[in-house]
Amino acid sequence: MASSRLAPNGARFWSSIEASAKIGPGQAGGLRRLALTPEDKAMRDVFGEWCRDAGYGLTVDRLGNMFARREGKRPDLPPVLIGSHLDTQVAGGRFDGIVGVLGGLEVLRSLDDAGIETERAVEVVNWTNEEGARFQPPMTCSAVFAGRRPLDWALARSDDNGITVAEALRDIGYDGDTPVGGRVLDSYFELHIEQGPELEDTETQIGLVTGAYFAHGMRISISGGNGHSGPTAMRDRRNALVGASMVAVAVNEVGWRYADRDGKSTVARIEAWPNRPGIISNEATVYVDFRAPTAPLADRMAAEIRDSLADCARRSQCDIDIDEAWQFDQGAFDPDLVRSLARLADELGSSHREIASQAGHDAYNLGHVCPTALIFTPCIGGITHDEREDTRLEDQLPGLTLLLNAVLERASR
Amino acid sequence: MASSRLAPNGARFWSSIEASAKIGPGQAGGLRRLALTPEDKAMRDVFGEWCRDAGYGLTVDRLGNMFARREGKRPDLPPVLIGSHLDTQVAGGRFDGIVGVLGGLEVLRSLDDAGIETERAVEVVNWTNEEGARFQPPMTCSAVFAGRRPLDWALARSDDNGITVAEALRDIGYDGDTPVGGRVLDSYFELHIEQGPELEDTETQIGLVTGAYFAHGMRISISGGNGHSGPTAMRDRRNALVGASMVAVAVNEVGWRYADRDGKSTVARIEAWPNRPGIISNEATVYVDFRAPTAPLADRMAAEIRDSLADCARRSQCDIDIDEAWQFDQGAFDPDLVRSLARLADELGSSHREIASQAGHDAYNLGHVCPTALIFTPCIGGITHDEREDTRLEDQLPGLTLLLNAVLERASR
Repeated sequence: MASSRLAPNGARFWSSIEASAKIGPGQAGGLRRLALTPEDKAMRDVFGEWCRDAGYGLTVDRLGNMFARREGKRPDLPPVLIGSHLDTQVAGGRFDGIVGVLGGLEVLRSLDDAGIETERAVEVVNWTNEEGARFQPPMTCSAVFAGRRPLDWALARSDDNGITVAEALRDIGYDGDTPVGGRVLDSYFELHIEQGPELEDTETQIGLVTGAYFAHGMRISISGGNGHSGPTAMRDRRNALVGASMVAVAVNEVGWRYADRDGKSTVARIEAWPNRPGIISNEATVYVDFRAPTAPLADRMAAEIRDSLADCARRSQCDIDIDEAWQFDQGAFDPDLVRSLARLADELGSSHREIASQAGHDAYNLGHVCPTALIFTPCIGGITHDEREDTRLEDQLPGLTLLLNAVLERASR
Repeated sequence: MASSRLAPNGARFWSSIEASAKIGPGQAGGLRRLALTPEDKAMRDVFGEWCRDAGYGLTVDRLGNMFARREGKRPDLPPVLIGSHLDTQVAGGRFDGIVGVLGGLEVLRSLDDAGIETERAVEVVNWTNEEGARFQPPMTCSAVFAGRRPLDWALARSDDNGITVAEALRDIGYDGDTPVGGRVLDSYFELHIEQGPELEDTETQIGLVTGAYFAHGMRISISGGNGHSGPTAMRDRRNALVGASMVAVAVNEVGWRYADRDGKSTVARIEAWPNRPGIISNEATVYVDFRAPTAPLADRMAAEIRDSLADCARRSQCDIDIDEAWQFDQGAFDPDLVRSLARLADELGSSHREIASQAGHDAYNLGHVCPTALIFTPCIGGITHDEREDTRLEDQLPGLTLLLNAVLERASR
């Protein structure tokens, strides 16, 4: 066990965050850097340059996942992997994901500064399309790495313009040639802003994730009939947009009924066709989700909305069906790793608490293939997926310091 | 006064309708022939060819309105104009508009068959973008012809892909060189399917339009805030899509409250941004309209929705405003022309009734510049703006025969 602990170079870390914040700026101080767009390419190029400048080996797999490797004494041993993502939402923040990748880079650089040669290699990964903002679903490419989804499935995902992941990768020159996954890892660490208010509310510096909120998602289809928006009598109308709106209102009401137990519901997207003045829409689709701290609560929320659909169908005179329902992965975090992080945080003098993640993360996928830890840092007001997302270096440093020393400890084995 | 009356060639008329029904087919037996698309160009080319083959002079104005002219003995006299439109909704029928243009063509051909030279010229017009399905608002180009809107305004209308009317006209080669409007007309006749069930329900062959339903339209904007669809507490959510859905449900309820007095409300379109899973939408827009047989009823419907917006705003925690409100033109139909049509229908032995139009028509614009008549024919079940829109030749012939003889009478003056 190392008796001395390392500190990262906070100024260098922060300057990398600030450099990232200039690439793909949003409209209100945040970022709009959708996966595999020219903005994403620009950020990838910069990240790759930083890695090569520092002498780390850089490989890109067939899904564009980028791996920077700081070699260890024993290249044959499974490496320690640190990672997150550099893509953002359409109106995203400067920290979501970015803190994890550039924090990982700072770990490698800090090891260089200290002149430490670890037993195991340490790698930093930038996962492709974590957000799911351009290609659905989110965490697409870490899912393939972890063997949860086939490669061809990911390559065939398409955006709203019909461009596939495979095409987009070629377009920006990040269609790498190394296989996706299939190799043994010692462990996986992800540093991420909390995306919730719990750390701030409890004045805690670090969250050690032990599980996730339970979540149900649904794609609900509403089928009505066309008609002229003028003459058609109310009794003859089967407006799919009205049916979709009734579903949306019902979903929102379910969220409020569970709000006192920290339940949430989201009306995420409504699509309708033709969705134009003059004609009544005959088809609509609503994307919704429900989240709660426990499985029974989440299940009850989902059941309530299932029960409400018949009423929405009757009132809108449309047919309403759940086309697809899914549950989000709950993650699988390694209890031993969490315990050792807690011990290390104590030694470093950082306050910490166990926490449940409310958002999805690539770490959920990695938890299926190796011991995995997800470390949360505070973000102001819990605001995220919003250009106002914000934090301070001083609030990121305890988590980053913990990551550095935990990785060092793990890679020294 | 002519003592003998003419009959149109029903088989020829119907074969032209059937030829049109093959150009720009929809998915369910109807048509998808949006204004100034390749499909619209193909139909225009066929219509133009028919007119030139018959020896009618064809001119195209700067908005692509096509005029086929059968010359009279006195070219100096203002002509009689017959018209409607050949464009359709995205899921439109084979008769809406088409009956009017091809019925007009049949009038000219029937005059040829009878070897009649009229005093005045008779023209048939195909108005550009009546539907408003591609470029908003509807009846765009007849409005400019009638001096109700400026030319530049129409040329600058753009579709969902940002293509303007001016560009689309150039793309299909229908950017003509004659001025739009500005000339004297003797009268305007439009033959159109009713787009309502009244003629069918009352077993009447012909509707003589004396006025229109009163209609209010609104563009309502909802402004909320972004946020992560997972962690954000219900109390912190300002989901614009939820606000839009509440407005949509309220609009629909207003329609039902006036349904017993033949009031109707339409939720025509919902747009939201980002409208994607993972992030709460911060902006949405809802397009709605309200229609009723009398102005006070329509006004009360509009007032009720205005009153309900504060409640929608409170419950969705969004800001909700009416960005734009408008009233549709009521039309101005010539009482003398209506009386002479009624007399002529009696003589022809066709049943007829006065009727209020529930949909908008180019005739509303023309009523501002010359004596105008709108003749309705039955359509099955009143179904329209729907690929199932249907009618039978036998139900169109009485109206077409009336049109032919009314035009002949008018052009013989």
